Amino acid sequence: LRSGFGEVVFCQGKAIEHLIHIYQRFYEHDTNVLGTRATKEQYEEVKKALPVVEYDALSHILSIQKKEINKTGCIAVCTGGTADIPVAEEAAQTAEFFGSKVLRIYDVGVAGIHRLLSKLDEIHSANCVIAVAGMEGALGSVLAGLVDKPVIAVPTSVGYGASFGGVSALLTMLNSCAEGLAVVNIDNGFGAGYMATQINRLAVRAE
Amino acid sequence: LRSGFGEVVFCQGKAIEHLIHIYQRFYEHDTNVLGTRATKEQYEEVKKALPVVEYDALSHILSIQKKEINKTGCIAVCTGGTADIPVAEEAAQTAEFFGSKVLRIYDVGVAGIHRLLSKLDEIHSANCVIAVAGMEGALGSVLAGLVDKPVIAVPTSVGYGASFGGVSALLTMLNSCAEGLAVVNIDNGFGAGYMATQINRLAVRAE
Amino acid sequence: LRSGFGEVVFCQGKAIEHLIHIYQRFYEHDTNVLGTRATKEQYEEVKKALPVVEYDALSHILSIQKKEINKTGCIAVCTGGTADIPVAEEAAQTAEFFGSKVLRIYDVGVAGIHRLLSKLDEIHSANCVIAVAGMEGALGSVLAGLVDKPVIAVPTSVGYGASFGGVSALLTMLNSCAEGLAVVNIDNGFGAGYMATQINRLAVRAE
Amino acid sequence: LRSGFGEVVFCQGKAIEHLIHIYQRFYEHDTNVLGTRATKEQYEEVKKALPVVEYDALSHILSIQKKEINKTGCIAVCTGGTADIPVAEEAAQTAEFFGSKVLRIYDVGVAGIHRLLSKLDEIHSANCVIAVAGMEGALGSVLAGLVDKPVIAVPTSVGYGASFGGVSALLTMLNSCAEGLAVVNIDNGFGAGYMATQINRLAVRAE
Amino acid sequence: LRSGFGEVVFCQGKAIEHLIHIYQRFYEHDTNVLGTRATKEQYEEVKKALPVVEYDALSHILSIQKKEINKTGCIAVCTGGTADIPVAEEAAQTAEFFGSKVLRIYDVGVAGIHRLLSKLDEIHSANCVIAVAGMEGALGSVLAGLVDKPVIAVPTSVGYGASFGGVSALLTMLNSCAEGLAVVNIDNGFGAGYMATQINRLAVRAE
Amino acid sequence: LRSGFGEVVFCQGKAIEHLIHIYQRFYEHDTNVLGTRATKEQYEEVKKALPVVEYDALSHILSIQKKEINKTGCIAVCTGGTADIPVAEEAAQTAEFFGSKVLRIYDVGVAGIHRLLSKLDEIHSANCVIAVAGMEGALGSVLAGLVDKPVIAVPTSVGYGASFGGVSALLTMLNSCAEGLAVVNIDNGFGAGYMATQINRLAVRAE
Amino acid sequence: LRSGFGEVVFCQGKAIEHLIHIYQRFYEHDTNVLGTRATKEQYEEVKKALPVVEYDALSHILSIQKKEINKTGCIAVCTGGTADIPVAEEAAQTAEFFGSKVLRIYDVGVAGIHRLLSKLDEIHSANCVIAVAGMEGALGSVLAGLVDKPVIAVPTSVGYGASFGGVSALLTMLNSCAEGLAVVNIDNGFGAGYMATQINRLAVRAE
Amino acid sequence: LRSGFGEVVFCQGKAIEHLIHIYQRFYEHDTNVLGTRATKEQYEEVKKALPVVEYDALSHILSIQKKEINKTGCIAVCTGGTADIPVAEEAAQTAEFFGSKVLRIYDVGVAGIHRLLSKLDEIHSANCVIAVAGMEGALGSVLAGLVDKPVIAVPTSVGYGASFGGVSALLTMLNSCAEGLAVVNIDNGFGAGYMATQINRLAVRAE
Ligand SMILES: Nc1ncnc2c1ncn2[C@@H]1O[C@H](COP(=O)(O)O)[C@@H](O)[C@H]1O
Ligand SMILES: Nc1ncnc2c1ncn2[C@@H]1O[C@H](COP(=O)(O)O)[C@@H](O)[C@H]1O
Ligand SMILES: Nc1ncnc2c1ncn2[C@@H]1O[C@H](COP(=O)(O)O)[C@@H](O)[C@H]1O
Ligand SMILES: Nc1ncnc2c1ncn2[C@@H]1O[C@H](COP(=O)(O)O)[C@@H](O)[C@H]1O
Ligand SMILES: [Mg+2]
Ligand SMILES: [Mg+2]
Ligand SMILES: [Mg+2]
Ligand SMILES: [Mg+2]
Ligand SMILES: [Mg+2]
Ligand SMILES: [Mg+2]
Ligand SMILES: [Mg+2]
Ligand SMILES: [Mg+2]
Repeated sequence: LRSGFGEVVFCQGKAIEHLIHIYQRFYEHDTNVLGTRATKEQYEEVKKALPVVEYDALSHILSIQKKEINKTGCIAVCTGGTADIPVAEEAAQTAEFFGSKVLRIYDVGVAGIHRLLSKLDEIHSANCVIAVAGMEGALGSVLAGLVDKPVIAVPTSVGYGASFGGVSALLTMLNSCAEGLAVVNIDNGFGAGYMATQINRLAVRAE
Repeated sequence: LRSGFGEVVFCQGKAIEHLIHIYQRFYEHDTNVLGTRATKEQYEEVKKALPVVEYDALSHILSIQKKEINKTGCIAVCTGGTADIPVAEEAAQTAEFFGSKVLRIYDVGVAGIHRLLSKLDEIHSANCVIAVAGMEGALGSVLAGLVDKPVIAVPTSVGYGASFGGVSALLTMLNSCAEGLAVVNIDNGFGAGYMATQINRLAVRAE
Repeated sequence: LRSGFGEVVFCQGKAIEHLIHIYQRFYEHDTNVLGTRATKEQYEEVKKALPVVEYDALSHILSIQKKEINKTGCIAVCTGGTADIPVAEEAAQTAEFFGSKVLRIYDVGVAGIHRLLSKLDEIHSANCVIAVAGMEGALGSVLAGLVDKPVIAVPTSVGYGASFGGVSALLTMLNSCAEGLAVVNIDNGFGAGYMATQINRLAVRAE
Repeated sequence: LRSGFGEVVFCQGKAIEHLIHIYQRFYEHDTNVLGTRATKEQYEEVKKALPVVEYDALSHILSIQKKEINKTGCIAVCTGGTADIPVAEEAAQTAEFFGSKVLRIYDVGVAGIHRLLSKLDEIHSANCVIAVAGMEGALGSVLAGLVDKPVIAVPTSVGYGASFGGVSALLTMLNSCAEGLAVVNIDNGFGAGYMATQINRLAVRAE
Repeated sequence: LRSGFGEVVFCQGKAIEHLIHIYQRFYEHDTNVLGTRATKEQYEEVKKALPVVEYDALSHILSIQKKEINKTGCIAVCTGGTADIPVAEEAAQTAEFFGSKVLRIYDVGVAGIHRLLSKLDEIHSANCVIAVAGMEGALGSVLAGLVDKPVIAVPTSVGYGASFGGVSALLTMLNSCAEGLAVVNIDNGFGAGYMATQINRLAVRAE
Repeated sequence: LRSGFGEVVFCQGKAIEHLIHIYQRFYEHDTNVLGTRATKEQYEEVKKALPVVEYDALSHILSIQKKEINKTGCIAVCTGGTADIPVAEEAAQTAEFFGSKVLRIYDVGVAGIHRLLSKLDEIHSANCVIAVAGMEGALGSVLAGLVDKPVIAVPTSVGYGASFGGVSALLTMLNSCAEGLAVVNIDNGFGAGYMATQINRLAVRAE
Repeated sequence: LRSGFGEVVFCQGKAIEHLIHIYQRFYEHDTNVLGTRATKEQYEEVKKALPVVEYDALSHILSIQKKEINKTGCIAVCTGGTADIPVAEEAAQTAEFFGSKVLRIYDVGVAGIHRLLSKLDEIHSANCVIAVAGMEGALGSVLAGLVDKPVIAVPTSVGYGASFGGVSALLTMLNSCAEGLAVVNIDNGFGAGYMATQINRLAVRAE
Repeated sequence: LRSGFGEVVFCQGKAIEHLIHIYQRFYEHDTNVLGTRATKEQYEEVKKALPVVEYDALSHILSIQKKEINKTGCIAVCTGGTADIPVAEEAAQTAEFFGSKVLRIYDVGVAGIHRLLSKLDEIHSANCVIAVAGMEGALGSVLAGLVDKPVIAVPTSVGYGASFGGVSALLTMLNSCAEGLAVVNIDNGFGAGYMATQINRLAVRAE
């Protein structure tokens, strides 16, 4: 999948010099780069050496897009609340980086189920759905019950008390009674966006 | 609350002779008795000494109803699946024992949200709602988002794998984003039925 | 319930611009607003744009009260220690915001049971009791054993070592042997205050 | 997806009479039925009433296949050890029930990585890979690192001691460093087989 | 302490022949023996070889008392419910075996605090108090708040759901806000009885 | 016990004004005060209002000793390592505050068992032993096996990785095979010092 | 290592026919076989087909020793209690199967440290030490502190209450302050015996 | 082992004056010192008093090497990713301090198995292998399956979400299906380096 699309860097915990070295090498090879979990400080230092890098403060993605990206198909990225948007953006921008069109449907959590129901027609048009939710994490189940496409659920660490840093949402998603749902790590928008793209591309070949 | 309604016995782990002694004493005082978590074997032994006892194999309630119970108000008891019904019945029969009318709405889990939505009008008529669900346990949240009355959520031990004997459903319920939801112990239908009755009676005084 | 009473905002983790936007919109519609888990910094920034907002540093509530609130009925809010007061205030002020009278009974933990016993008459006058406690969290049980009204227990993250950020108090409350007790998330004063108000209003209609 | 393919029943914990009733109704409507987590005893009782049911003792699937199933595409189902085969068969037979061709590649765990490497060409031919493993659960990661298609990982409860009934394998899979991996509940072969079929069908439309 | 009092055997999991051998050797040396956690089957087999052994089915203690035991001082053993009595008896009989007088005060849990308060005078007469409780486990805290002597708290595995086999009671006891409380392992009546005796004997020397 | 000895304040999380108020009131009543878990900042602020307070930076105890304390008996306080000394000092200074003589035996952990063995004679002279240890926490067991007096074990949060903030040491101590050991909360030196004093005083009455 | 020594079979959960097939194939190739975690029932069935198999009821090892095994070097296998012996025997017999001499030193737990100290000279003669212990699991630490050779610690599931099936002993061992200690899975005598043999053979080459 | 090699100091949490005192005393006795888990601040303060100390910012080792160290044998230290290098360096530098030659093979995680396979010949030359990995932690298993020497696995706290600070990697390693693997605490490079040296020295005596 990645060939022709670019390289991925896991920025968390990487030293500045190390990061600069990696980004420079990819830049010289005309390769697009998607760096996840980058801090603002990492961005500022890398930018000094390589002014072409771009940073999205919401998704914490540090990227170089030298070659144009052609987007096809459709992935729906939904969130339960507004606090889940950073993780959703990591998923959405990863999917876009690898060539998927993305439909963003945010703040449609199950405590107000009618907002979600009103968006169903749009969601049905996607080849794959990503459900991003923290706290009780029920969005994945409800979505998988309503749509016929694979749903990738991303638990987030949003919450407090007995949300245990995302464990509550993770367990909810793993125990879903609905069909067609699989789960990635807490806050792992990247993983969901990547797998959704794999699925979207399998589907797109058919159109 | 209990005065005039009867006594409660927690049968789990009680020795047969001890149980017979308790039930006989209450029987002689013309007191209704509600025993929870009784086994079939406990029932059969107590029945030998006191043929008037009745056993509900679904809810595991072992009871004597000597005095007629007058039922008022309304409590809605909902379940996610059919496997949650034993716990729901413990809640419903406890509520009835203490004088509440009960509306049973079973198997309306969030994986098929439309079944739940079609029952909303009925549910709105209750003074208090009990939501019984295992596995992902999202029913409580969805209900509390839809109704304006207090919702008491009962996680059940139904499930396997990462449901961890009800912990997954418990955490889902504790972390609900919806307003007006409180939680009792895993499989504690009795606790939910009792508290719902307290609320129902506060409301009924008003009618 | 909320209609006519105002709107609720979960401030934790919300960006300043986002918060200002929300508060301004409600202010323009003459709606009261109750924002929970707001930081002092959020308050100071919102205040610059909207000097009418008020901040309670104890409860971390950021509110606008444009329309007068009429308070009825009675909810008793009790705490085990003085460190539980911030969570208790979140509960109490939420209940007041939605129109309940509140009786505050603080620092009556079970290690000195006589202080609690001396307040029982007052507590009996409430339609609903909120028990806020950290560490061993036994206050909920003792209260539910003493009063006949629904008790909503709020575990707090007060403690150290094996209190595990409130888990110890949470488990104590979920496993209570007393009747008429339900539990909300750790430190969730808001949830308790909201549900207590639902119950209080059901009772008040009767008077 | 399911329309035209048949219905699914979660047999675990269902009463015999209830099961017989469900299977009979589907049988009368000429619907294929896939029942998961059925016990041998459930099978024997249902068979008395409905001799057409078939039971697979390995996967614990209780099924009626009245209408012929047309199989297309390809899903690879791999296991770490032989003890994981029951869960793998639940996945494989679910996928077949819903119309997927299945390639079984068992006992290729990472402790003897060369057996797995020798099967890679075969695995590359699938549209989706299911990785079933207990104990350390590393098979999912290794597979996702080697293939470019979506990998659905199923942790199993195989193991002892600190495998904690599948938790060890579950965490390994959630924390995979490889791209293109999502996880279902412990021992949930059904969920993996179902989602793999959704993906396979999206891909098949393209051929 | 033990010299002159007898020997202790941990029977759980020991083979019959091994047990018989141990008991016989002590018997021949005229030593009293206290065996804990013995099953009925172990008792019956040992009795065949050594008819002098006695078994208490409540405490699961298998003992030989060849030499008379002189009892002094006073230890109070209290329980929350009746289901905690087996563990309490293990504590009480251990204390008696090592020469302490024991005051049994059972079923005085905090859900009905007045029963406990009515026994306070008696409890004050003890040199050391043992508090045995399962489920919410609050008895230890309340007792330590009321009495001035060391309290040894024994959590029991009595309960269901989120009692997690005694973990809930254990955490309650460890997090007690009251002074003068220490905790032993879940269901470890023996450990509490032994340490209480050490304390009792230190006190008795003073009288 | 406390009457005539002074009052205890749990400083953690208390507001400065609140603390000053408490200390001033006790000071005016000529009462000694022992405040635990006080920060340096709390000390500096209280000192401004009440220059008589003293702060021990090791034990984090903030105290006023207006009346002379008469010390009797003997308690041995042992630690596994030097990092456990702050908790040990909280225990030792609490015991001294309430009138016990204290023998400090630090850095005698089980990885070098001979240092511990060489101190045994001294330890035997105490009426009660406090064992303070983090990481593997085995000191309590070894001590209880060597001495005949009650041992109070204090797990500390010293360690990293799988020490889980003291849980490892806590479990070691709860599961000790040695007789005469009870446990207090992680880092709860105060609780151990208090209970040891209760025991020491019972013994001292005898001398 | 294994070449020339024989093959290993993990019997737990394997079907009888499958086991017979495996053992027969190895028998025909004149290969020694070591099967771990075999049940008595597995043994009896395999014996019918292959009377040459031997079963050790203590270690649950099902083996064929067709070729003589030459034993060299020395491994010391120590246990804390007698209940740990089955796991110790799995370790010892595994080591012997692969050609190590084994020194068995059982029941030398830290609650009676002098028994262990009296065996030190013997233990020093080994190239590698295996420490098998449940409950508090401190034996590994104490041994690693006393000897200069690698110590492999095996936590066992012996215990009750907060031993959590071996987790307590596992954590103790992982957090050891002593140098030269590594840990295998709970009850994994096989793993310890195998690795000890690898070490022993490295050492033996030198003699 | 240590005699003639030097002393070890666990710097974490030690006070500056205490550290200076320790280092100075060893320096005066011409002893090499290896201090682990030292902070940069500790280094700077100790350096003021003792300019000879050296600090490695990657491994956090603070050392004095007064006597030359003679290195023999071979230990291979492998990591899954680059973020695991600090822990690997703690292991490698510990092994070198005690006289082992070290082969560093970093960033060979199982998500790209071919990089690891290409290094196998080199790894086979070592007497002992250390496998350092976070997140899913599968490197240990794969290595132990490929090499015939003892493998010591070090889980690291690298990761996020359900890696739970290294617990995921720890469990993976404990549950390995491969032979010849033992585990040390999360991030405990020191422990692995020390035990690997013990093994290496046993082997070296043979050459
Ligand atoms: N946010 C993320 N969560 C999990 N894995 C990631 C993430 N971002 C990148 N990765 C993985 O990390 C690899 C890059 O790691 P590295 O070589 O250390 O930069 C990528 O190929 C991905 O497989
Ligand atoms: N299923 C239940 N779960 C929790 N508590 C219960 C249950 N059934 C009864 N109880 C409580 O147990 C008390 C009776 O306990 P007992 O006196 O031991 O029979 C009742 O008054 C209730 O408070
Ligand atoms: N370090 C401590 N850990 C646990 N409990 C403590 C500690 N220090 C004081 N306490 C308890 O807290 C009480 C004082 O609490 P407060 O009234 O909030 O200052 C004392 O009487 C003790 O019972
Ligand atoms: N008791 C045990 N615990 C962990 N792993 C074992 C055990 N016994 C055998 N094994 C491993 O399981 C492998 C054999 O597995 P199998 O091919 O399924 O019989 C052996 O080569 C060992 O690596
Ligand atoms: Mg679906
Ligand atoms: Mg609601
Ligand atoms: Mg009540
Ligand atoms: Mg891949
Ligand atoms: Mg007290
Ligand atoms: Mg002792
Ligand atoms: Mg050693
Ligand atoms: Mg190997």
